[in-house]
Amino acid sequence: MNLRGIHHVGVAVSDLDEAIGTYERLFGARLELRDFLAEQGVEAAALHVGESRIELLAATGGDTPIGRFLAKRGPGMHHVALETGDVAEALRELLASGAQLVDEAPRRGLFGLEVAFVHPDAVHGVLTEVVSGG
Amino acid sequence: MNLRGIHHVGVAVSDLDEAIGTYERLFGARLELRDFLAEQGVEAAALHVGESRIELLAATGGDTPIGRFLAKRGPGMHHVALETGDVAEALRELLASGAQLVDEAPRRGLFGLEVAFVHPDAVHGVLTEVVSGG
Repeated sequence: MNLRGIHHVGVAVSDLDEAIGTYERLFGARLELRDFLAEQGVEAAALHVGESRIELLAATGGDTPIGRFLAKRGPGMHHVALETGDVAEALRELLASGAQLVDEAPRRGLFGLEVAFVHPDAVHGVLTEVVSGG
Repeated sequence: MNLRGIHHVGVAVSDLDEAIGTYERLFGARLELRDFLAEQGVEAAALHVGESRIELLAATGGDTPIGRFLAKRGPGMHHVALETGDVAEALRELLASGAQLVDEAPRRGLFGLEVAFVHPDAVHGVLTEVVSGG
């Protein structure tokens, strides 16, 4: 698969503003974008840390994907996103490799990116996103 | 802090060879290095995924840091490593920012890298490594 590398690491947090402040203070992170996906119940901030990107994810309520993650595991690393030029092609290759997918077609994710998630069971417990652009 | 970006994402796995095979098959990863740190009870593989790096970590026994992580949480993301030119200087800055550290001085980590860990309680649940070189 033709992957460019890690696009971002997604981190589930309880308080988005507080977490942004921590990354700014400790690691000199610069806020790039904030976004809100109502249908996923998530509010997010993209931060630049050096030449890389950390995506902080907060839940708008308990009965949301991030809300359930926080209730079960607490704040912490949530997913790794790998950048590709073509998410649909990446999904075809992943299916051909026998990988279990969460999203069988690309969808619009945070920050207007085209995204799809691979099931963590296919990647030894790591929720893995493939993402295009950004 | 002067950070270059994400040096690698560390992933705890149950079977190192099987996990290397998964990353090669699904994501076209290329094995860069394997290493063994007896005093930490960890065997590791560094993989290139595009221009980024994933570090797979397996335990040599249950009573090791990775063994205890696997018993508690199962396989999955373990830490994020941020690259800096000077780990000792990064630690001084982190201490000045009030961050709780796991390692108060740089130590020799996997692959001969100079490393230190910041306590996850200081970073909203994310075990964060600062690393120099590689």
